[in-house]
Amino acid sequence: MSTTQTLARFVASYDSKNIPAEARTLAVRSLVNWAGCALGGARHPAIESALEALQPFFGAPKANIIGRAERADALHAALFNGISSHVLDFDDTHMATLVHPSGPVISALLAASQFYPINGSAFIEAIVIGIDVECRVARSVFPQHYDAGWHITGTAGGFGAAAAVGRALHLDEKQMAWALSIAATQAAGLREMFGTMCKSLHPGRAAQSGLSAALMARAGFTSSERGIEAPRGFAHVMSSAQHLGAATEKLGERWEILTNSFKPYACGVVLHPVIDACLALRGEHHLDPSLIESIDIRAHPLVIELTGKTAPTTGLEGKFSVYHSAAIGLLNDKVGSRHYSDEVVLAADVVSLRQKVNVEIDASIAEDESDVTIKLIDGRSFHKHVDHALGSFARPMLDADIDLKFRDLAETVLTGRQIEEALALLHQVEKLDDAGKIGEILAPRAI
Amino acid sequence: MSTTQTLARFVASYDSKNIPAEARTLAVRSLVNWAGCALGGARHPAIESALEALQPFFGAPKANIIGRAERADALHAALFNGISSHVLDFDDTHMATLVHPSGPVISALLAASQFYPINGSAFIEAIVIGIDVECRVARSVFPQHYDAGWHITGTAGGFGAAAAVGRALHLDEKQMAWALSIAATQAAGLREMFGTMCKSLHPGRAAQSGLSAALMARAGFTSSERGIEAPRGFAHVMSSAQHLGAATEKLGERWEILTNSFKPYACGVVLHPVIDACLALRGEHHLDPSLIESIDIRAHPLVIELTGKTAPTTGLEGKFSVYHSAAIGLLNDKVGSRHYSDEVVLAADVVSLRQKVNVEIDASIAEDESDVTIKLIDGRSFHKHVDHALGSFARPMLDADIDLKFRDLAETVLTGRQIEEALALLHQVEKLDDAGKIGEILAPRAI
Repeated sequence: MSTTQTLARFVASYDSKNIPAEARTLAVRSLVNWAGCALGGARHPAIESALEALQPFFGAPKANIIGRAERADALHAALFNGISSHVLDFDDTHMATLVHPSGPVISALLAASQFYPINGSAFIEAIVIGIDVECRVARSVFPQHYDAGWHITGTAGGFGAAAAVGRALHLDEKQMAWALSIAATQAAGLREMFGTMCKSLHPGRAAQSGLSAALMARAGFTSSERGIEAPRGFAHVMSSAQHLGAATEKLGERWEILTNSFKPYACGVVLHPVIDACLALRGEHHLDPSLIESIDIRAHPLVIELTGKTAPTTGLEGKFSVYHSAAIGLLNDKVGSRHYSDEVVLAADVVSLRQKVNVEIDASIAEDESDVTIKLIDGRSFHKHVDHALGSFARPMLDADIDLKFRDLAETVLTGRQIEEALALLHQVEKLDDAGKIGEILAPRAI
Repeated sequence: MSTTQTLARFVASYDSKNIPAEARTLAVRSLVNWAGCALGGARHPAIESALEALQPFFGAPKANIIGRAERADALHAALFNGISSHVLDFDDTHMATLVHPSGPVISALLAASQFYPINGSAFIEAIVIGIDVECRVARSVFPQHYDAGWHITGTAGGFGAAAAVGRALHLDEKQMAWALSIAATQAAGLREMFGTMCKSLHPGRAAQSGLSAALMARAGFTSSERGIEAPRGFAHVMSSAQHLGAATEKLGERWEILTNSFKPYACGVVLHPVIDACLALRGEHHLDPSLIESIDIRAHPLVIELTGKTAPTTGLEGKFSVYHSAAIGLLNDKVGSRHYSDEVVLAADVVSLRQKVNVEIDASIAEDESDVTIKLIDGRSFHKHVDHALGSFARPMLDADIDLKFRDLAETVLTGRQIEEALALLHQVEKLDDAGKIGEILAPRAI
């Protein structure tokens, strides 16, 4: 059997009973993290602009736009939730392929579940299977495809969205092969768009395209049944090398979602061990930041290469500044997305403290490791060594960490009570009769 | 200035007064041909399936789906009209790039004009400029991009749609550069899909993506301003060679639409000179097909390579059979799309006649040339040599030819009176205050 057909059969026929409990746990965790990111991004100018442009074309308002009062048809809801979940660059990452898995998959699936009956258990299974197909298709072309300039979340994302929706709507094997091939022929997204709103358009479009691919295939819209592996199909046309075996190896035995990872801070992962160290130093020694004379950081070479901006002037630039990131870690009990705003980046105490940061590159330090020494004006000094940053493989974010992140992101659009209600529902998702309720609980309501 | 910015400035600022009259004439001809193809395709199973899948998500029904009673929001109308205009493989071709230009451009533009005020003159100018940008972007990557497996109508089409809509809605230069880049990052369509409904999805999606690109850019959704030429932009990521100079050479002086070409018959162009010869022999000699003993054809080698199917059993296979095509040319006063139906392909008189066809390959015969000799059972013989097929560069289809094609295609969905009213309006399009009326006149109405 071909790659496309093998994956289609897996989506159509895999027995849910064989999905391991850890995979389900990761699916719930991915859902909470996705929901938090989408809430945090819901008022981003990218969402406002896209709403202005596209709202006149919305169909019957059956689906929620996360974190917004507006409702939309399912296709547009998938698009908007895909955008908002990625616009803060704070969503999950499948490290082996650099795919951000949940944006396309969960945005499409939730929109479908607000239109078609899908219960909570089927919803979680569809996330597991959708992310599996998404990351496996990505493996079939990684890294050459990414290196050539494709934003792999945009391209592989459509397969994952189609697989998740196709699973939840019970497409048969032939329909599912068509759905994956319809996703293949809509795969798009260029890395040239990084740094613009268009980057977040990619998972949005992938969600929308994958959802429509599943619906069209179900209605008999024919396609190739070899869209991934054919000579003029996805893997050959969009990559200089093909690793088709990786797409189906240990299918149903090895689960890609188990290596999905989450970010505790809204900046590049190379900064995370530095922030961990600074937060720990502040917490352990009850530091008064005004007494700090110098901050000496030993770090992996990528820290300077990627985040060496000494004098950022915007929130976005702050995400690429180890100096700013160390300062906010020493000035706050926790670091949230709001600490990468223009206002905080320009605040006098932040600017003053970041100027005391010195970074020494040390090739013996790992990417998820850091070593920070602080000297006070009274002569004392404190030292912290972080072996593994929070969110790394060795020290993954667990439920409590992700809930904390959710609360931080959600408070921009939901009340405290709504936040706790939403978390309670998300953690009990598998017991829901109607997974569409997830959309309702993530929309702001009158208090 | 960069390629993207140069094209954006052209779209935003080119003085319509300098568009030559021939370009406007070709735009009207392209419009009539596009409308005929969309009417002929309006009841294709691809449209029926797509409607079943997507109609639940339609927004306010302000735009027409050509040839159908259903109406849709502008984004879905662009999608559906792009599909129906290409689904018969009967639409226009820009030979230098193999782009089918009108499907993406006119489908997007008409949908926009049913939502925003666009008069007939601006509509025609936007077609000229949209097709120019579309074919120029295609030139920047042709032929390597096409040879690699991209369906260039899907990929270049979005740029054309964005340019046409952006022109008609008066986007400024920066917005237009964003719109072209948003189109770039949605460019998609694989040749693996040929032979399935997905082939016609490509111009539909290009129309929809290009329309939304222009609308999003207008609303401030930011993108790269170098989406075409940047190292991780369209031309480098999606082609092994770049011909960026061709995208802007003689911009505003040489017009791509002047080399747009149209097909008189619903089959591969290599068959057209054979059909021309057979129709001429029948007409000139008032042939009784039952008296024909043999049909000897000398033809270009591609005729057998591409259309050598001796015993087709479906309408689709008939399009790849020189034997069937010669037979229907001798049995009918004109050859229409209906002669490539399953029913006609299996008809006894057609099958009997096609078995009398002999094809001799002759490398000295050009692709648009043919030589046909008929022998009758009474010993007489007749000969016809076609120097240039109708629809070739040397003998293009003119208004009367395209009107004839329009009538043939339109009669499946419109009454005779509606057809003549539609043709009259299309030929007077530049005088319309509201180009949106084009959509209304192309929808079936109660008689």
